[in-house]
Amino acid sequence: MAGSTYGKILTMTTWGESHGAGLGVVVDGCPAGLPLGEEDIQRFLDRRKPGQSRYTTKRSESDTVEILSGIFEGKTTGTPISMLVRNQDQHSKDYSEIASYYRPGHADYTFDEKYGFRDYRGGGRSSGRETIGRVAAGAVASKLLEQLGVRVTAYTKSIGPVSVNSERFDLAECSRNRLYMPDAAAAEEAAAFLEEKMAQKDSAGGVVECVISGLPAGIGDPVFEKLSANLAKSICSIGAVKGFEIGEGFRAAGMAGSENNDAFCSTDGVIGKATNHAGGILGGISDGSEICFRAAFKPTPSIASVQKTVKRDGEEIEVSIKGRHDPIIVPRAVVVVEAMAAFAAADMLLAGMTARIDRIREFYKK
Amino acid sequence: MAGSTYGKILTMTTWGESHGAGLGVVVDGCPAGLPLGEEDIQRFLDRRKPGQSRYTTKRSESDTVEILSGIFEGKTTGTPISMLVRNQDQHSKDYSEIASYYRPGHADYTFDEKYGFRDYRGGGRSSGRETIGRVAAGAVASKLLEQLGVRVTAYTKSIGPVSVNSERFDLAECSRNRLYMPDAAAAEEAAAFLEEKMAQKDSAGGVVECVISGLPAGIGDPVFEKLSANLAKSICSIGAVKGFEIGEGFRAAGMAGSENNDAFCSTDGVIGKATNHAGGILGGISDGSEICFRAAFKPTPSIASVQKTVKRDGEEIEVSIKGRHDPIIVPRAVVVVEAMAAFAAADMLLAGMTARIDRIREFYKK
Amino acid sequence: MAGSTYGKILTMTTWGESHGAGLGVVVDGCPAGLPLGEEDIQRFLDRRKPGQSRYTTKRSESDTVEILSGIFEGKTTGTPISMLVRNQDQHSKDYSEIASYYRPGHADYTFDEKYGFRDYRGGGRSSGRETIGRVAAGAVASKLLEQLGVRVTAYTKSIGPVSVNSERFDLAECSRNRLYMPDAAAAEEAAAFLEEKMAQKDSAGGVVECVISGLPAGIGDPVFEKLSANLAKSICSIGAVKGFEIGEGFRAAGMAGSENNDAFCSTDGVIGKATNHAGGILGGISDGSEICFRAAFKPTPSIASVQKTVKRDGEEIEVSIKGRHDPIIVPRAVVVVEAMAAFAAADMLLAGMTARIDRIREFYKK
Amino acid sequence: MAGSTYGKILTMTTWGESHGAGLGVVVDGCPAGLPLGEEDIQRFLDRRKPGQSRYTTKRSESDTVEILSGIFEGKTTGTPISMLVRNQDQHSKDYSEIASYYRPGHADYTFDEKYGFRDYRGGGRSSGRETIGRVAAGAVASKLLEQLGVRVTAYTKSIGPVSVNSERFDLAECSRNRLYMPDAAAAEEAAAFLEEKMAQKDSAGGVVECVISGLPAGIGDPVFEKLSANLAKSICSIGAVKGFEIGEGFRAAGMAGSENNDAFCSTDGVIGKATNHAGGILGGISDGSEICFRAAFKPTPSIASVQKTVKRDGEEIEVSIKGRHDPIIVPRAVVVVEAMAAFAAADMLLAGMTARIDRIREFYKK
Repeated sequence: MAGSTYGKILTMTTWGESHGAGLGVVVDGCPAGLPLGEEDIQRFLDRRKPGQSRYTTKRSESDTVEILSGIFEGKTTGTPISMLVRNQDQHSKDYSEIASYYRPGHADYTFDEKYGFRDYRGGGRSSGRETIGRVAAGAVASKLLEQLGVRVTAYTKSIGPVSVNSERFDLAECSRNRLYMPDAAAAEEAAAFLEEKMAQKDSAGGVVECVISGLPAGIGDPVFEKLSANLAKSICSIGAVKGFEIGEGFRAAGMAGSENNDAFCSTDGVIGKATNHAGGILGGISDGSEICFRAAFKPTPSIASVQKTVKRDGEEIEVSIKGRHDPIIVPRAVVVVEAMAAFAAADMLLAGMTARIDRIREFYKK
Repeated sequence: MAGSTYGKILTMTTWGESHGAGLGVVVDGCPAGLPLGEEDIQRFLDRRKPGQSRYTTKRSESDTVEILSGIFEGKTTGTPISMLVRNQDQHSKDYSEIASYYRPGHADYTFDEKYGFRDYRGGGRSSGRETIGRVAAGAVASKLLEQLGVRVTAYTKSIGPVSVNSERFDLAECSRNRLYMPDAAAAEEAAAFLEEKMAQKDSAGGVVECVISGLPAGIGDPVFEKLSANLAKSICSIGAVKGFEIGEGFRAAGMAGSENNDAFCSTDGVIGKATNHAGGILGGISDGSEICFRAAFKPTPSIASVQKTVKRDGEEIEVSIKGRHDPIIVPRAVVVVEAMAAFAAADMLLAGMTARIDRIREFYKK
Repeated sequence: MAGSTYGKILTMTTWGESHGAGLGVVVDGCPAGLPLGEEDIQRFLDRRKPGQSRYTTKRSESDTVEILSGIFEGKTTGTPISMLVRNQDQHSKDYSEIASYYRPGHADYTFDEKYGFRDYRGGGRSSGRETIGRVAAGAVASKLLEQLGVRVTAYTKSIGPVSVNSERFDLAECSRNRLYMPDAAAAEEAAAFLEEKMAQKDSAGGVVECVISGLPAGIGDPVFEKLSANLAKSICSIGAVKGFEIGEGFRAAGMAGSENNDAFCSTDGVIGKATNHAGGILGGISDGSEICFRAAFKPTPSIASVQKTVKRDGEEIEVSIKGRHDPIIVPRAVVVVEAMAAFAAADMLLAGMTARIDRIREFYKK
Repeated sequence: MAGSTYGKILTMTTWGESHGAGLGVVVDGCPAGLPLGEEDIQRFLDRRKPGQSRYTTKRSESDTVEILSGIFEGKTTGTPISMLVRNQDQHSKDYSEIASYYRPGHADYTFDEKYGFRDYRGGGRSSGRETIGRVAAGAVASKLLEQLGVRVTAYTKSIGPVSVNSERFDLAECSRNRLYMPDAAAAEEAAAFLEEKMAQKDSAGGVVECVISGLPAGIGDPVFEKLSANLAKSICSIGAVKGFEIGEGFRAAGMAGSENNDAFCSTDGVIGKATNHAGGILGGISDGSEICFRAAFKPTPSIASVQKTVKRDGEEIEVSIKGRHDPIIVPRAVVVVEAMAAFAAADMLLAGMTARIDRIREFYKK
């Protein structure tokens, strides 16, 4: 079944493998008249580019985007925006060995079971490079949101056991450390933890937090198309994500109703909430406060230490994964979370325009 | 935007409000020839029925289902299965007061912001009664899964601070206590905790765990239509769910790769895994082991103790919610989780038939 | 595969069989605040009701609709509108014989091939009664269009060899003759023709024409979601439709470009067209002039004269179809065409709101 | 709204403009294991290439396809197949004048009304070059159908007043004349007719007929997803199509039931039909006989003779369209019809696998 399209009104269709000719995305349903250029996309792609620090793969790719359609005179035309990134540093021979066995924690076995065979070069379609199309599409969505006063910001919340301290929280710090942690001290501690894992030929996981601000109240639908449900799907569709929570999330399960409820209040006639345990969503619909959610990323499955596994024919063997792998994917996943959240939010904002007949009548001026 | 349909190949379209004429669902895309009767549906609905214990609302509804279409001579015909449950005990006057203000933790405010007004009787479409359609549809999906050797089982994992002890885990226990906890001692402790909350005019949350067994390897798609992403959406679309995790979930973020990876092994030529930290999904595709996930439910927002809120015009007031409310929704939500998981799994099983040209050729015998 | 839902933003999901408990539809995505009551729906249903004339089946059904959800205080709430019509005059025994053989021109054989068996009572899901849900949904769409100044009008263009004469065209005439022909003389001639067919135990077909007026320019999309393509699908999904054409339609294939092109002109600064060979659609998008299309209906396949066919086991037999069948379905199909066209137009009007960033920005007032 | 994706299980997402960097398509949902190479695609693209005869535009484009993803070791992998054709002969200056006015019969005006501005170079997205993506996708679908014994064949049925004579019908003739007419004498006559139109600086339209053979009975759904309805949409989404009919089509409206019904018969125990007025579809579902439909194409709107139109500001002017335009698009549209029909048929064949629980159980071997 076709499974590479996301969205209802605004859609992205991604394609491409780690070691094919390239990767890309078609963004469809983008409104006409949005100023957009390759530099807007490149800025996002550069944030997920390999080789940014010693904690990301040494694979060297410029990941330069080309916009092939949908833009005229610097603005979107309302027709599909096709974007292409060519693969460069493919080193196919590095991966030839893995064709014969199933890497633990990877999709090798499940691809073979599903499709009967697989493009084993670098993970093929299940490579982290699959996110290139998502990030390019997210850059378009972010430009759209910008026009509507909405801003999406993600950052590293924790790496292994090291969490951001809320009292030291400083968003500006994210761009100063390559772990995208909004807390300089935590970033330093996390770096030390990662050094330790690398020395052990092991890897680490972590949590990404994301905030959507400026979203008006009333976005999202009451039943299956809840804003929270769509964020859950968009985020859990990112490889390596094992959990998603919004507002208090799993902590809410241990709270009393009197603690978890947010009181409504009124400031100069504007209705708001005294707290935001809900993470900005009530009954699946945005309440006008900040949307706040977190995603749990598992540790990178490719590790150099010895693991047990089997060959395709079932023979049990021991392997240690070679190659250029990130000891942690969280820092590079931050922009992927931001991209998916921006895309989901933009899609639901467009969908939100048809909720009331009075506003539709006004739109069509009858 | 239409937001009451779930699924791609197998779909459910739910409808209905707490205090309207009734609630129901249309299940479409169900294969022909499946034995199905009202008793199959009723068995599921009875598990979410109010009035089962002193921890569920005293609202008295028989919630009797009528199948209106799609069945002939005791079997599905392949055409839409329409199911209807009439509302009986509506007590509209109980809810008349809440028309004037916004209940904290409820969707009153967000509905008004989205739609301009709302059916304020008992929460209208955002009432827990909305799940009747989901449960009826889940009963159909469960019958379908049964034919394919797949079984979905959900239970209460924790209530407030009280968790099931894995050493005492006994699934049979679920049907013996009305909290659906597979641990008699924990259930007793949880009951005491709920008594305390009720005495405090407060409420509690909890966690539901769900296991899907018998699902073959190869189900789910590699990118946006990951099995995990679809489960995330289906579960996070249930009202009051604030978090979703699969396998180790948020714990995976703190683990090392060497701990979290599951080694592949071989038993009599059959490939399997030595452990199941992944929760049965690799790269979005089922790996043949049990699918295991958890959902966090927030405490019931309707509490009798005093809360601050505002009227529609912004006037700040204090309220205490009256009426027949569950101090905890988790026990009745267990079957809803099971229903949504069954539906998502069934939909993806059907979608999984078109993955390989050799199997399609064989199907069409060419 | 689920195949009973139509639409993208505004959807209808129909269900029900000729001889089941009833038939109905769930309309989802309807904007909130639209005044709507059962009388609005009933008015449409009454136009497709059997027993209106001697040219329609004598089956006696009141086809009374009940709205089960989605309306509060006389207005739509933005949530699904579920509508139900109970079957009354089922006469199951009339149909018992047809279980054994395949009626020519009907879907008996194809249902058996697809599903392995069929609800043989009165055609089951492939009965003309399936259109009840469409008509009820079309009534909702028409109310919505009314608010936006859009009007959909269908009528009988021809019956067998008898066509409406454009010089005698009088829309008011439609409600005066039960053939819904806007030409009294043609209606009389057609009635005589039908008498002849009935005497021959035979049946007739015809053409329905439909005009959508008031639709603003700019509705529809340039590629697959052309307004013309969506109308084609919605109309060709009606049972017995064998052809669809827009504007000059098949005649355009024989015209020169200089004849078929519509010159643009300007009246008081307003751009319009001097002619409307295009039928109001250019490049898939409405051009502000009237949308005009036609649908060809085949003759009723149920005829009393003798036909050759086979039994399920392949035995060749001769049959003559008994029962209460319309000698022509066109007059009752007029409202079905109108309903489907209204629904498609309403869906695309809602979809048209997201085409331009300047208008979206204005909508969200940023 | 996103409008460039077609299909449910098997999808194509097209992109690109006449004078942008290129055009292309992403085919998603294609089963794994299908042998596929660029030569399979190129063969189809060459049939729609400009410059094949004096009746097609002199624009010189090699339209060479590059497959960017989804193929490994000569077979599809089950992941998206991205295909790219770069634009070469763009001659932008030829089109600069048309930026100022609205060409009759084109989408210039409707694009401006919808999007606020347009890529005026060569029609932008509404250019005939948009079909490149459709044809490339259709080539993939045809390879898939080939594996299942299904064959799609389209040809020119008529050009202006010149129709193929059924007694002279010879499919092999199609590849001998550049009008793709299966009748040498008619082709000669049509060529003379086109010379005449060209001398008059005018253009012509025509009819394409298409036959799908080998499709098993049981494909298509009974209500909105009728095979006929999906073919209608796929074909009417092709620019310049103004009509669609299946089997007897509009002629059926004038026939008696006794003439139009196809008698079922039995040959060696195999059920078939004595005639095929229905065009192979009963109740929306294939009946095992040949699917036969026709599409009416309007005359090319770009003509060199003088026409009246308006400028963007409403000023009335006279224009004569210059540039390299086909006097008729039908011959090049033949492969587009074939591509869309193949894609629709392939999508519905895949969808048809989930109709019966016994066959699903057998597929999953339980």
